[in-house]
Amino acid sequence: MKRNCAAIGIDIGGTTTSFGFVDQHGIILAEAVIPTHGEQPAVNLVARLQQEIGIELCTLPDNLQLLGIGIGAPNANYLRGTVENPPNLKWGTSVNLVQLFRDQYNLPVAITNDANAAALGEMCFGGAQGMKDFIVITLGTGLGSGIVTDGKLLYGSDGFAGELGHTVVDPDGRLCACGKKGCLETYVSAPGLCRTALELLEQRKPGGRLAKIAGDKLTSMDVYEAAKDGDPLAQEAFSVTARILGIKLADAVAHTSPQAIFLSGGLANAGSLLIEPAKQAMEEYLFTPYKGKIPILPSALPSGNNAVLGAAALIWHKQKEPV
Amino acid sequence: MKRNCAAIGIDIGGTTTSFGFVDQHGIILAEAVIPTHGEQPAVNLVARLQQEIGIELCTLPDNLQLLGIGIGAPNANYLRGTVENPPNLKWGTSVNLVQLFRDQYNLPVAITNDANAAALGEMCFGGAQGMKDFIVITLGTGLGSGIVTDGKLLYGSDGFAGELGHTVVDPDGRLCACGKKGCLETYVSAPGLCRTALELLEQRKPGGRLAKIAGDKLTSMDVYEAAKDGDPLAQEAFSVTARILGIKLADAVAHTSPQAIFLSGGLANAGSLLIEPAKQAMEEYLFTPYKGKIPILPSALPSGNNAVLGAAALIWHKQKEPV
Repeated sequence: MKRNCAAIGIDIGGTTTSFGFVDQHGIILAEAVIPTHGEQPAVNLVARLQQEIGIELCTLPDNLQLLGIGIGAPNANYLRGTVENPPNLKWGTSVNLVQLFRDQYNLPVAITNDANAAALGEMCFGGAQGMKDFIVITLGTGLGSGIVTDGKLLYGSDGFAGELGHTVVDPDGRLCACGKKGCLETYVSAPGLCRTALELLEQRKPGGRLAKIAGDKLTSMDVYEAAKDGDPLAQEAFSVTARILGIKLADAVAHTSPQAIFLSGGLANAGSLLIEPAKQAMEEYLFTPYKGKIPILPSALPSGNNAVLGAAALIWHKQKEPV
Repeated sequence: MKRNCAAIGIDIGGTTTSFGFVDQHGIILAEAVIPTHGEQPAVNLVARLQQEIGIELCTLPDNLQLLGIGIGAPNANYLRGTVENPPNLKWGTSVNLVQLFRDQYNLPVAITNDANAAALGEMCFGGAQGMKDFIVITLGTGLGSGIVTDGKLLYGSDGFAGELGHTVVDPDGRLCACGKKGCLETYVSAPGLCRTALELLEQRKPGGRLAKIAGDKLTSMDVYEAAKDGDPLAQEAFSVTARILGIKLADAVAHTSPQAIFLSGGLANAGSLLIEPAKQAMEEYLFTPYKGKIPILPSALPSGNNAVLGAAALIWHKQKEPV
């Protein structure tokens, strides 16, 4: 373990970009948020980040040693150091963001996608400390996944392994933004939950509070609040969502045999409305050798900006490896 | 590369057990087959194998150096060295077969299941030479799978990773011998193909040659021969089977991002009746970053006993690793 050291974690989102100086325990020593301005070239964001990082650094002890810069970004490719066709950033086909940072800093720089960063964060600072085989599922506007096997993030041949959000629930199912039909994330995500609630409303035409909200105004928070307050339709929307998640998690286990599965992100906060029934469905479809062995757990990252912690873990992960 | 060296590969089946001395090129220098006698304890099989191995060894050059013993067996666990609850062998809950061989030989001994052995065989001697990320699917009475990531077999936390035969095609689907519903191997395997043909016969009540075979007599070879000769129902049975396989292979790609997928085993010999339509369905359901990049290939192991080659590859694999 290194004292007086920190890694810079940067989380690039479509609207805002956060960064923080993260110590060995996952404590964020200083942090800030700036607008991403995704309509401008990536080099512009790097220049503004450099300035802000300099400002924050002045607030920290002089003897703080920087170990490196870890970046989490949508559509990031760890192997190539690039961000490729990011949906909400006008950065074109491919930008080598790692190179742009290396041009400015004499430090190790690494990049990966949000879900992979979440998995590394869980391994360095969260509930997966000491685990060598686990899966992290991030549930938000989409469903992301980071798979760790034998103590390492699984990247596969092309740097894009771990895309469980685009596995098939129903070959003739819902159209996904990716262009395919029936992808898991069209069912298990914040918008997926809303779509299920709206379908149930359409089929059942019940009373209840969700029926009073116009379809295009319905949010996953509405469904969550209603379910928590005992609304049967909202609870059914959760149980349908959880069952689909559980069955696909059983498939994921049959691929990589993890010790545990962690759920993080907005929808994961639904807790027992999601985790318990997902676990039940997963157990039903687990192959015998795995049955009863694999807990589904909420992320146990220390409070703070999870995405910044995950990005910093890209650097801390290497420091913590046994020599 | 080592000259005048061989690994002993042993393939334990429910009825017969084969072994062979395999050189660095995957050439079997000598081989034999003995009955498994699965009703007797494992130690009995080990004793008889020891005797037969001694006899075959006498036919080989005096200066041949034995590198180790690799074993492929159903329900084998690489991490524990055991065979656990083998369905066709009366060996009880768990037998440490690796220890039984180590008691007799002063050589490295390793064991894994048939599909993992097939994957190592493909990597050492077949079409996956030089690849670091690929999947081998074995199609026979069941569907086995061996997943290689970053140059290593994926074992997961419990030694049982890579059980794609028990991923879910349809949560309310066919009952599998494992006790679950809708497992892939109830659709994509020799018996699965027959089940599909019988279901189609029942639905369509057509003429044609398959209708003349009693249901319990129908074999996958009958379906294959009929399909090759242009029988529409047999061809439909293949296309249904191939589509299910293709969709689940797209899922497998989304987990581990392989460079290629290899098919081996009896049903894989159906060639274009299976591989072409499976590839088409896989492409339809592949997430964009993978599209058009992942060939489905027949196993390219040299002719001979593939299972013995795979078992020997457990030893050769380690010899061939870069130092």
